[in-house]
Amino acid sequence: MALTLTPLTGIPLISPGDDLAPLILQAFDRAQLALLDGDIIILAQKIVSKAEGCLVDLTKVTPSPRALDLAEQTAKDPRLVEVILGESRQVLRTRPGVIVVEHRLGFICASAGVDHSNVHGDKGRPEDWVLLLPENPDASAAALRQRLEAASGRHLGVLIIDSHGRAWRMGTVGVAIGISGLPGLVDMRGWADLFDFRLQITQVGVADELAAAASLVMGQAAEGTPVVHARGFPYPLREASLGELIRQRDQDLFR
Amino acid sequence: MALTLTPLTGIPLISPGDDLAPLILQAFDRAQLALLDGDIIILAQKIVSKAEGCLVDLTKVTPSPRALDLAEQTAKDPRLVEVILGESRQVLRTRPGVIVVEHRLGFICASAGVDHSNVHGDKGRPEDWVLLLPENPDASAAALRQRLEAASGRHLGVLIIDSHGRAWRMGTVGVAIGISGLPGLVDMRGWADLFDFRLQITQVGVADELAAAASLVMGQAAEGTPVVHARGFPYPLREASLGELIRQRDQDLFR
Repeated sequence: MALTLTPLTGIPLISPGDDLAPLILQAFDRAQLALLDGDIIILAQKIVSKAEGCLVDLTKVTPSPRALDLAEQTAKDPRLVEVILGESRQVLRTRPGVIVVEHRLGFICASAGVDHSNVHGDKGRPEDWVLLLPENPDASAAALRQRLEAASGRHLGVLIIDSHGRAWRMGTVGVAIGISGLPGLVDMRGWADLFDFRLQITQVGVADELAAAASLVMGQAAEGTPVVHARGFPYPLREASLGELIRQRDQDLFR
Repeated sequence: MALTLTPLTGIPLISPGDDLAPLILQAFDRAQLALLDGDIIILAQKIVSKAEGCLVDLTKVTPSPRALDLAEQTAKDPRLVEVILGESRQVLRTRPGVIVVEHRLGFICASAGVDHSNVHGDKGRPEDWVLLLPENPDASAAALRQRLEAASGRHLGVLIIDSHGRAWRMGTVGVAIGISGLPGLVDMRGWADLFDFRLQITQVGVADELAAAASLVMGQAAEGTPVVHARGFPYPLREASLGELIRQRDQDLFR
């Protein structure tokens, strides 16, 4: 069966307090695309964060001594560094322009996912505002899924994605940061190939593979198409959370 | 535009010396799917390696002292470790059951991509044979692309993929190991979002995103559907090579 990823056009610019569910359902209506059981809706983190108002006004941030020190090492705005530290459990690596952290949600990423962002409305100079990741992306995905399932009567998955760099490869790729209703990992242990050898690879990061696929059709300047519809996901839907995809520290050889 | 990934069914089991191009073209015919300009053909590494005969008979391998030592540390077959070392530039991490290396092709992966594999034909006990990655996957992709373009009269991309683990996340994902005719990276530097902020993320690993998408529809026990057709790749095709996606050592903060 084919996997089809369709970017939904016409999602308006999102502001704090906007309700995403009806905007998404309207986009499906406009596309004359009816949801089916097993479909997955993938959202760029940015619109979830904006709708949830995960914004910080840098003019109201006072950098700590640690933030001032790290800002000097990395040539970054000390107020931004303060916000990054507030979103992080641990700073792993720094160099000029780069701060790699363990985010409070458990994954490793640059700048704790904090981004300067075009903030709409009467909020002062946009360059003084930054956007954080959603407070609890799994919960955001679950809440949205409940709304979309109720409206459609279908059994769906919802995935919230961001773009992360990789330790050893150039370029960012889409990864899952919030999951509801689809597996993060699919366990291949015990599956046999055609000649009954045991597969040595045990687990596949299917939610991350789907995130990468969706990221490809969103593009990066994702304001225009921050919602993607996926049909043909080849694994059974089930309850899951982001935790499946997070490598625990004691399993991490490269921290 | 939607991105559609279609696994091609009915590709036979591949043996050394098999010619992949006609087998792929026959699969397109059976699927009644005509190639169009901009389409991308994605192949699992395994069938390329098998067709190219990248097989090693472990009964003929004599482990070096270094392989014997590493085999003891990692509880692996010393002959297999010898083969892994031969495919590697550098061993980065070891623990029982795990050897992470810089492959001779430049990327970081477990066991240098060497895998026990069901080998067909009269070749002795299958568990004594292992499959290496293709000698030069970019060249393999380019040669196949030339054949498929000549047969179809279309401008195509060809991508060879494998499944790699990640430093910080659980589960493997599909990644590019050989590229012909499509970008590895798309450079977003200077692209503006809707409000003319400069994007801070500069480069997207689009070939890896496509590899992940294709891996999702291949599954892992990939003998059945090791070839995937992609239509709707949203970036212009161009000449490229795997090198774009390899982070150089001096840029690697996590080695």
